[in-house]
Amino acid sequence: MQTLHVELGDRSYPIHIGADLLQNTKLLTAHIKSRQVCIVTNDTVAPLYLPAIQSALTEYDVSVVILPDGEAHKHWQTLNRIFDQLLADRHNRNTTLVALGGGVVGDMTGFAAASYQRSVNFIQIPTTLLSQVDSSVGGKTGINHPLGKNMIGAFHQPKAVLIDTLMLTSLPAREVSAGLAEVIKYGLLGDAEFLTWLTDHMDRLMALEHSDLAYAIARSCETKARIVAADEREGGMRALLNLGHTFGHAIETQMGYGTWLHGEAVGAGMAIAAELSQAMGWLSSRDVTQVRDILQRAALPVDAPDTMTVDQFIGHMQVDKKVLTGRMRFVLLRALGQAVITEDVPDAMLREVLANSIARGVAGRR
Amino acid sequence: MQTLHVELGDRSYPIHIGADLLQNTKLLTAHIKSRQVCIVTNDTVAPLYLPAIQSALTEYDVSVVILPDGEAHKHWQTLNRIFDQLLADRHNRNTTLVALGGGVVGDMTGFAAASYQRSVNFIQIPTTLLSQVDSSVGGKTGINHPLGKNMIGAFHQPKAVLIDTLMLTSLPAREVSAGLAEVIKYGLLGDAEFLTWLTDHMDRLMALEHSDLAYAIARSCETKARIVAADEREGGMRALLNLGHTFGHAIETQMGYGTWLHGEAVGAGMAIAAELSQAMGWLSSRDVTQVRDILQRAALPVDAPDTMTVDQFIGHMQVDKKVLTGRMRFVLLRALGQAVITEDVPDAMLREVLANSIARGVAGRR
Repeated sequence: MQTLHVELGDRSYPIHIGADLLQNTKLLTAHIKSRQVCIVTNDTVAPLYLPAIQSALTEYDVSVVILPDGEAHKHWQTLNRIFDQLLADRHNRNTTLVALGGGVVGDMTGFAAASYQRSVNFIQIPTTLLSQVDSSVGGKTGINHPLGKNMIGAFHQPKAVLIDTLMLTSLPAREVSAGLAEVIKYGLLGDAEFLTWLTDHMDRLMALEHSDLAYAIARSCETKARIVAADEREGGMRALLNLGHTFGHAIETQMGYGTWLHGEAVGAGMAIAAELSQAMGWLSSRDVTQVRDILQRAALPVDAPDTMTVDQFIGHMQVDKKVLTGRMRFVLLRALGQAVITEDVPDAMLREVLANSIARGVAGRR
Repeated sequence: MQTLHVELGDRSYPIHIGADLLQNTKLLTAHIKSRQVCIVTNDTVAPLYLPAIQSALTEYDVSVVILPDGEAHKHWQTLNRIFDQLLADRHNRNTTLVALGGGVVGDMTGFAAASYQRSVNFIQIPTTLLSQVDSSVGGKTGINHPLGKNMIGAFHQPKAVLIDTLMLTSLPAREVSAGLAEVIKYGLLGDAEFLTWLTDHMDRLMALEHSDLAYAIARSCETKARIVAADEREGGMRALLNLGHTFGHAIETQMGYGTWLHGEAVGAGMAIAAELSQAMGWLSSRDVTQVRDILQRAALPVDAPDTMTVDQFIGHMQVDKKVLTGRMRFVLLRALGQAVITEDVPDAMLREVLANSIARGVAGRR
């Protein structure tokens, strides 16, 4: 088992990573401060892992909330089911919420913990590779609004994150790839050495070798933790984490959420970001080939959907909430392993790179 | 105009208090950081004060949300109208919310500001005496859930509070009295000198003399700010602010919210707390008479409703969320101007004091 420490002053917490680490129930119970616990999970995860968590907590008064699975349910009405249960079972301010599931369960449970009686503790047990590398660090919680994703929420740090790589064996292959997109992102944006390691170990990761998965997850979390510690509430540097995301969000929005998985759209978005970086004169064609190659070995798309137009891309990018001023901001690569933020991309260059990606594009429905 | 500074590190903010201070538009605009502003108010306050605020903000892109008036609307559906408007008008993270109204508007606007895009700025313009002395300091925001009041919310500090005593001239007399209950509370719990001042100036306060109102509001806010600065997230000392509230909540719950105003229930609750303090041997009968006298001069009830039973009182008090352990905790008076927290009240003593108050009791419907 590996343990990282996310250093955020009095909001610091550990991330434990390993195979079958939930056997050690103390990792969980050490962070529960009264007899009251509420496990929040979804109807896909519950049959697989809820019994094991419950049997680790026989000494506690445990409430369980099983939400419907999926991003479509990440809204107020579902969140309110957590509050209903907490109040029906009279949970007080010393209760502890446990998020057992992927990013949607983590975001909603975290926001419920931030808001219930104006804040209670919570512990994350992320069950997907994407949530293990992406939601474990950063403290972002929230729900969607019909007019925008993640528009309502809070910054609220967990007391601990427990990442059991054994849980990944039950994950569909497409979701493993989607999670690897975020892992590759951490190499690309700030860790060239890790990018080389990933190039050497991608086949082992795709085969779910636990020691390699644990290493890749730990190193991704470390990179994110370093960035978040420097910029907890998203002023400047934290924007680097959006590498590939501006293009990716445009794809997700245009195709309809869920048609492409988030990680798949980010994969294509990172390839486009690399090509735009090449057009800026920052990456060589060999660098771009390396980026596309590693994404493809992770079974991720490297081109835009062939049904999209350049104008659709740019339309979605302009309403993206990361566009703060009127000028579009991009996270691009100065070099492999070194992301930068720039507003200096000529419109014609952007259009040409997008047109090329679409021309090579992949079939829209994945 | 007087200005207090609430010292909370990087969350510090000023409270400006005076008659007609909204004439000075800079007091408001100094705390707005972009062109975007969203004023949240209710349908009682809007016709009275919204035009003046709007004309102070002609240089800004102003959205307006007018909520239905009343505690009955302090729930998610109403809160969501604020989010709907913010998103429809594309407010970004640099927007500023302005809460123009009483405690309900302040609590909901503050929670909307805490949650919109994971936190934006807000400014409070409280329009009732109760909200001017009670909600201006402390950072508590939130909404009600069908199973409990204020169960969902956040701690979120405003960037500034503007208290215009002229607004009190439009307030119904009963609401002035309800606000004075909280003013008297600050004297009773921690400021004997202020209690003497209040005894001398109650008639002037009831006549809405502006300089006296401004002094009483400032001194109340100062006392609350001192307590909150020592205990921002409610560990120990902040519980002193609940003087009169445990009994008051029992009255409100039993009679149905709105039958007695919150301040009226707190008034009777403080008289009961004083009598229980006398039974504990801490206050003299002269002290108790002084407490009852000042409350009566503020046109507040000093006895429990004659329709309530002792068992009803105790039943409600046991489910009050301030009862954390199982033992009932009371905020009582060691002396006038010195509140303490105790769990050592014999059950028989409590029952006798409650029975006496009910026996002298006032008609249930006020």
